[in-house]
Amino acid sequence: MKVAFVMGSDSDLPVVERGVKTVKDFGVEVEVRVISAHRTPQVAEAFAKQAEQNGIGVIIAAAGKAAHLGGVLAAYTTLPVIGLPIKSSTLDGLDSLLSIVQMPPGIPVATVAIDGAENAGILAVQILATANNELKEKLKMYKVEMAKKVEEKDKAVREKFI
Amino acid sequence: MKVAFVMGSDSDLPVVERGVKTVKDFGVEVEVRVISAHRTPQVAEAFAKQAEQNGIGVIIAAAGKAAHLGGVLAAYTTLPVIGLPIKSSTLDGLDSLLSIVQMPPGIPVATVAIDGAENAGILAVQILATANNELKEKLKMYKVEMAKKVEEKDKAVREKFI
Amino acid sequence: MKVAFVMGSDSDLPVVERGVKTVKDFGVEVEVRVISAHRTPQVAEAFAKQAEQNGIGVIIAAAGKAAHLGGVLAAYTTLPVIGLPIKSSTLDGLDSLLSIVQMPPGIPVATVAIDGAENAGILAVQILATANNELKEKLKMYKVEMAKKVEEKDKAVREKFI
Amino acid sequence: MKVAFVMGSDSDLPVVERGVKTVKDFGVEVEVRVISAHRTPQVAEAFAKQAEQNGIGVIIAAAGKAAHLGGVLAAYTTLPVIGLPIKSSTLDGLDSLLSIVQMPPGIPVATVAIDGAENAGILAVQILATANNELKEKLKMYKVEMAKKVEEKDKAVREKFI
Amino acid sequence: MKVAFVMGSDSDLPVVERGVKTVKDFGVEVEVRVISAHRTPQVAEAFAKQAEQNGIGVIIAAAGKAAHLGGVLAAYTTLPVIGLPIKSSTLDGLDSLLSIVQMPPGIPVATVAIDGAENAGILAVQILATANNELKEKLKMYKVEMAKKVEEKDKAVREKFI
Amino acid sequence: MKVAFVMGSDSDLPVVERGVKTVKDFGVEVEVRVISAHRTPQVAEAFAKQAEQNGIGVIIAAAGKAAHLGGVLAAYTTLPVIGLPIKSSTLDGLDSLLSIVQMPPGIPVATVAIDGAENAGILAVQILATANNELKEKLKMYKVEMAKKVEEKDKAVREKFI
Amino acid sequence: MKVAFVMGSDSDLPVVERGVKTVKDFGVEVEVRVISAHRTPQVAEAFAKQAEQNGIGVIIAAAGKAAHLGGVLAAYTTLPVIGLPIKSSTLDGLDSLLSIVQMPPGIPVATVAIDGAENAGILAVQILATANNELKEKLKMYKVEMAKKVEEKDKAVREKFI
Amino acid sequence: MKVAFVMGSDSDLPVVERGVKTVKDFGVEVEVRVISAHRTPQVAEAFAKQAEQNGIGVIIAAAGKAAHLGGVLAAYTTLPVIGLPIKSSTLDGLDSLLSIVQMPPGIPVATVAIDGAENAGILAVQILATANNELKEKLKMYKVEMAKKVEEKDKAVREKFI
Repeated sequence: MKVAFVMGSDSDLPVVERGVKTVKDFGVEVEVRVISAHRTPQVAEAFAKQAEQNGIGVIIAAAGKAAHLGGVLAAYTTLPVIGLPIKSSTLDGLDSLLSIVQMPPGIPVATVAIDGAENAGILAVQILATANNELKEKLKMYKVEMAKKVEEKDKAVREKFI
Repeated sequence: MKVAFVMGSDSDLPVVERGVKTVKDFGVEVEVRVISAHRTPQVAEAFAKQAEQNGIGVIIAAAGKAAHLGGVLAAYTTLPVIGLPIKSSTLDGLDSLLSIVQMPPGIPVATVAIDGAENAGILAVQILATANNELKEKLKMYKVEMAKKVEEKDKAVREKFI
Repeated sequence: MKVAFVMGSDSDLPVVERGVKTVKDFGVEVEVRVISAHRTPQVAEAFAKQAEQNGIGVIIAAAGKAAHLGGVLAAYTTLPVIGLPIKSSTLDGLDSLLSIVQMPPGIPVATVAIDGAENAGILAVQILATANNELKEKLKMYKVEMAKKVEEKDKAVREKFI
Repeated sequence: MKVAFVMGSDSDLPVVERGVKTVKDFGVEVEVRVISAHRTPQVAEAFAKQAEQNGIGVIIAAAGKAAHLGGVLAAYTTLPVIGLPIKSSTLDGLDSLLSIVQMPPGIPVATVAIDGAENAGILAVQILATANNELKEKLKMYKVEMAKKVEEKDKAVREKFI
Repeated sequence: MKVAFVMGSDSDLPVVERGVKTVKDFGVEVEVRVISAHRTPQVAEAFAKQAEQNGIGVIIAAAGKAAHLGGVLAAYTTLPVIGLPIKSSTLDGLDSLLSIVQMPPGIPVATVAIDGAENAGILAVQILATANNELKEKLKMYKVEMAKKVEEKDKAVREKFI
Repeated sequence: MKVAFVMGSDSDLPVVERGVKTVKDFGVEVEVRVISAHRTPQVAEAFAKQAEQNGIGVIIAAAGKAAHLGGVLAAYTTLPVIGLPIKSSTLDGLDSLLSIVQMPPGIPVATVAIDGAENAGILAVQILATANNELKEKLKMYKVEMAKKVEEKDKAVREKFI
Repeated sequence: MKVAFVMGSDSDLPVVERGVKTVKDFGVEVEVRVISAHRTPQVAEAFAKQAEQNGIGVIIAAAGKAAHLGGVLAAYTTLPVIGLPIKSSTLDGLDSLLSIVQMPPGIPVATVAIDGAENAGILAVQILATANNELKEKLKMYKVEMAKKVEEKDKAVREKFI
Repeated sequence: MKVAFVMGSDSDLPVVERGVKTVKDFGVEVEVRVISAHRTPQVAEAFAKQAEQNGIGVIIAAAGKAAHLGGVLAAYTTLPVIGLPIKSSTLDGLDSLLSIVQMPPGIPVATVAIDGAENAGILAVQILATANNELKEKLKMYKVEMAKKVEEKDKAVREKFI
């Protein structure tokens, strides 16, 4: 199963790319799209309706401001939809965050931190891993790697201040 | 031309009704609907696409929380869409307001105050009045009436404190 | 009918100009003014009172901080007034937004996103289009153009990540 | 010189009355008005322009939501204008506060706490006292009285917990 | 695979119960726990470490204020962790939301709306459904049911206002 | 009577200087001080207690972050104290604003906009002008000058867009 | 050494009492005072200056709105000062929190949660315990007790949902 | 007794270093660590459990975003834990502040200002000083030094404006 990254505007790409890299590093196939909930609503509808049969397992929707993309896609599919709020030029991303996370009952969007593209990617892999033991092992190794890096930095800082 | 009131949930009705009354008081016909951007997205699409030919001149979209209704309708029509943010049980309506007003370039939603149903109604009438002299006159009389009421209260309060 | 752009300070011009361009692109005539609700209140009053007879159909009021311009103009006219909140040097535009959108019952100001000048322009055109079939057609074509641009970007991004 | 209390709506009266009482307790004459910046703008203009010659020394403007009253009055007078933000049904008074305090350069509004009517009253008395020794003495006694009350409560609480 | 509901305090139970009911309605087994990230951190650690081998597929962590529960559990497992921010007596749930959603890179918590227990439940089912066709079908039926209910309310409201 | 500018830190000087210039332009004498409510509390106390007899008519207190300076000075004098919130490196001045404006009953601080030094200065002059006809006339001329400048900009912008 | 609870107003007592009880439960002596930073500033100064020689080891300062009490006390002592922000009738305690926690460099106030009186008490005990082994043991037992209570609730909830 | 500085990421070091310097200037020994609540939770647990016997008297935990580090350490020790919220790339540190300060009853974290590393350091020294007369004297001298610096700046600014 693939992870689809959908962004509302190609200006979101610099943030989204970090998530794409994260998912690819786990060996999971991706599909990357620019679809606007407001400018190409019918592309959004078609994409969401066909996502499952197109081999997509999780959708990551990145959008800023009044960020409706995640909710609009979730309206047309029962696949898990991850919402990635993008910080825009005003309000520091608070508008994006609230527009995505405060979904009304019935249609959840799994929201990660503002500009938190890596975490959107890892969450997508965790979801796919619920039925994929190989991914599960990779996630465990990823955790070990993260810990190692922190421990190396810890060592460097400790020595600096002795 | 009619004014359409669309609300995301019938729990919004107590607020919306004040706007419906306002519009009717100007002698303008209304249509009142419950359509969810997320639960009945295809009804929303169909409604917005056919609004113009169904005699609707302005759409008022009332919704709370991650309030996508106005944006979703605006995606499918070029009629003016007025967004009415509804205060929900958390965050005091700030989430609704930002989800509605912070629309990205290309697809405006004309936003009024949180729970500001009367103003949504008056704005709709003002829009229809740009090509309707009778409505224009009624709006002017409405302004005069409002002023009178304030002046009466002013008189009462002045006398109270003399 | 013309669209009037009124800004509280000429420092708002770089934002407002984007809206002026948007309206002109639809072939609608504009009038652009610097009028301060607080420094030239009588110019504001005179402007608003005469707007209708001067051929103005919609007023766009751009202002920052404690942004009273839209409300002050709306007090003196029954034309639709669009409020364009300008981001200032503190509070990221939240003060401008709330000062404009939270209008009390009776005097609506149709608010768009912070610094959302294009949307203010499109909304003005949508309002004029309620009685102007030529503008209606242009708005539909504008929507088609927007969709095309997004689809081109979608194509470019898809290919980049295959 | 009198202190004028102007409120945007008579629903603000329960808060404003506390300020009126405070000012009267100092033996200063008051005038209490209901004037709306948006519904009776010309009354507001006339009031502000004539305030000085009507014997008013300080104006207190109480308003909620997009609270323009203080700014609109200050536009037409050079008397000190005190802004009293009223908590409304949404946003907990933050909209009122920002609409009043964030005035652009040139036209200050001296803002007190949300619903802080007593402080608006005391500030008005302090301003009048800059040229009135009798008021100055009363303000000093007021400070002494306040301190006494706190000290009595301090005594009661200390004893309770011994 | 089971869905585990973990709450930081049994005062969160009235909200959490709505999520439990949602998950059970899909025929998915649940486990419900009270575990505090701060008061019983070692229970939290043990729970998270053994969750996978105990047959848990998704963890829902409900907590208020400085809500660390989701992050703490996610630190010890690679299962997807859903964060459910609980509105507490101050700040309207904004503290809970930010404490949960703003996770640093590497350890995502899939956040739903403040007090959005039903959506936490549905999201958990969507995640399990990525490898469970029966659940997939139930989710599609759930969407159809939701739409039906909205359409019934739409009918009722339309008739009321004809 | 003089206007005293007190700032909590000399890093506030670039903002405060604009206010000093404003007051001097009205021919009013100033005194400029660096006094910290927290680091030199006894200087603050002594300054406030002696302000009146030192010929000070109004105190302007500029401070950032947890900005207690205005309140601390107001505790020791009955002169009007104007609070000038300074934007600091985090929270965009919201902390300064709330720390200054939300004073409890009994001790008002007349608050102006974040970094609004000119308005602090004008407000101080307005207060002194309540008993000084020469200042009153200067304030009226200042208003006329401001209006002229706006009208010139208005003329320039109008011509640009004809 | 004693723990002193100082509150700005006796209306804060219902919250403060919970903290007093917490400290007493550890067998630590308390002193409870009502002292206003603004209404009885000289009492505040005297209290803080003499606190150390009066056997006080830690000061807990509870205040709401523009909450200067903690900072004012900290200005006059080098004892640790704990700030307890009290939720007032507007802004949900955010004003209190920011007024207390955002202290400028040099004068810290150790801030706990809004209305978090128990934690203020425990923190005071933790501070005293740095040089008091008996208190250290009591704190460890307190942690064990807390864990037990959570585990009992966990047991009850688990059984309820089996 | 030592003061331990623990930061969640070495990107926090530029802020933390200011606090380390402050503590060292008082002649107190420090230990500086990089430990992540989420990436190296077991290091965090081990560190906190052994802190007391390793001669640590106070722990300063610096973290940004959903900042759980202070709470996680406090869960495993009864030493006083000081939380230092770090401003991150979005939300201006508000997320860090609320994640740290709003701790639930039972487990306090003594929170200082966003990026307020010096104050974290001084607070730690104040805590150690409750049982260390030499430190007490140094803190008093520090206060005197701070006052002197402000007074010098005061002198410079006064002269500048004479």
